[in-house]
Amino acid sequence: MTMSMDKLIQKIVAMNNPTVAGLDPKLDFIPGYIKEKAVAGYGNTLKAAAEALYEFNVGLIDALCDIVPAVKPQCAYYEMYGAEGVDCLARTIRYAKAKGMYVITDGKRNDIGTTMEAYAKGHLGQTQLIDGSFVEPFGGDALTVNGYLGSDGIKPLLETCKQQDKGIFVLVKTSNPSSGELQDRLIDGRPVYEIMGEMCESWGEDQRGEYGYSAVGAVVGATYPEQLTELREKLPHTFFLVPGYGAQGGGAQDVAGAFKDGIGAVVNSSRGIMCAYKKQELDERAFAEAARAEAIRMRDDIMSVVK
Amino acid sequence: MTMSMDKLIQKIVAMNNPTVAGLDPKLDFIPGYIKEKAVAGYGNTLKAAAEALYEFNVGLIDALCDIVPAVKPQCAYYEMYGAEGVDCLARTIRYAKAKGMYVITDGKRNDIGTTMEAYAKGHLGQTQLIDGSFVEPFGGDALTVNGYLGSDGIKPLLETCKQQDKGIFVLVKTSNPSSGELQDRLIDGRPVYEIMGEMCESWGEDQRGEYGYSAVGAVVGATYPEQLTELREKLPHTFFLVPGYGAQGGGAQDVAGAFKDGIGAVVNSSRGIMCAYKKQELDERAFAEAARAEAIRMRDDIMSVVK
Repeated sequence: MTMSMDKLIQKIVAMNNPTVAGLDPKLDFIPGYIKEKAVAGYGNTLKAAAEALYEFNVGLIDALCDIVPAVKPQCAYYEMYGAEGVDCLARTIRYAKAKGMYVITDGKRNDIGTTMEAYAKGHLGQTQLIDGSFVEPFGGDALTVNGYLGSDGIKPLLETCKQQDKGIFVLVKTSNPSSGELQDRLIDGRPVYEIMGEMCESWGEDQRGEYGYSAVGAVVGATYPEQLTELREKLPHTFFLVPGYGAQGGGAQDVAGAFKDGIGAVVNSSRGIMCAYKKQELDERAFAEAARAEAIRMRDDIMSVVK
Repeated sequence: MTMSMDKLIQKIVAMNNPTVAGLDPKLDFIPGYIKEKAVAGYGNTLKAAAEALYEFNVGLIDALCDIVPAVKPQCAYYEMYGAEGVDCLARTIRYAKAKGMYVITDGKRNDIGTTMEAYAKGHLGQTQLIDGSFVEPFGGDALTVNGYLGSDGIKPLLETCKQQDKGIFVLVKTSNPSSGELQDRLIDGRPVYEIMGEMCESWGEDQRGEYGYSAVGAVVGATYPEQLTELREKLPHTFFLVPGYGAQGGGAQDVAGAFKDGIGAVVNSSRGIMCAYKKQELDERAFAEAARAEAIRMRDDIMSVVK
């Protein structure tokens, strides 16, 4: 089997595109005709909302799957529609995988021991049924996680990563304005994010793949280019998931430091791609086409700075 | 409307019982006859597993609702059964609320901006459907959250807390052995958990209720009694959710410091209550009765040290 992060990197290299499309389908982003069809079929219910999300996602995945290596569904936008929304999340992941895409489930999950194991089994691995047989409830390739609880929160994931060839991305330096309230504070002269980053290096040290990157990646925001560059140097075996490009203000130059020898990171855009048709004031039926054009523009923008 | 944390404290005072029963229903904990019935009805499916979880939860809630003020379902144990499991979570929350219990959804969710709003709406508030009407997907009274991302991750919740009279519990000092890897490190001479605790005081300062506690509580483990006592002094407006009693090793004396003038905390037990029938080697049909007896023992044990 191929190590999970290698699968992602191979897709990035093959498509010459180190980006991931965020699937954060707010109802506001979804064309009216899709929502009308969902209401016609299911009334004004959570199920109708979930169906609209799913049809929107399928349109985006179809338009992106041959040029963008990965998608990143954000759990919150599915959970807000209850079990129906979570079913849409599971179906979206299955559809993207069937189309050959690498799926990063953005759940920022965190807990300890057997509870973290339950998240690992649910999102990345297999769950045991009453008769002892196994099923894959979600089947993502990687899961974002929060390391505030320390090794007890990460080790249960490492077992699943090893057995099932999956990956995780630990929050290190997030893209939001207030990320520094804790993450920039100094511990023995070094910021919290650097200490978290070093823990990622250590958690991943016995699961390194052919490109040198481990199953334990890190989330580092495009909105902090200096820290991104500094962390690329300090964390040579940690692959980066970089949010904050586009809508949050980060540009291509800001993410350049995340790369070394042409690899090292995958840069996310959610609203920029999902809402490209709105920004360009195109007909809503052109949403998928507009998303593809924006994904190509983003790819070329980022590849222009990748070293 | 009554502020959420006041509702919890009122129930605690009325029942003279500052404890919460964790609903972490692993299949291993569930009596065989419940699992057999679920398989007979639904085959060996995720649905059958979810039904077994639900019937177990209903039995526990029925046995506990007149003596225990709150339940704390742990999301991971439901998510691991996919959308069927998440539906069981939603139904469990509704059932516990119908029985008058306060529900703390243990999701340790964290994100920023509109994404955190989506979690807030989904778990504590209301979600807007396609026609603009609102539904309550989960309806918990409080949600556990992780503050690593700073204020951008907490402020979207505060709005829902204020509008819907809900609460949150932020991870401050967790009960696990490795919690100190980050949480005990010193920033300007003070541990990370203390800084996180002070952020809780500040986030909650304009949402304080009649007992002086705000809508922003903190998770502080029973396994660190000194820190618990120290934080009770330093965070006078922050109500504590205390895991780690029982199975994780904390005893009544360890949680004594979490209380001041008889209130200040709610102590969780999950396995101790759920698996009481196993520990006492009772017939599995006595699971609910055994859970009740253990809940009474725990209540008396903790009330014996509450100051």
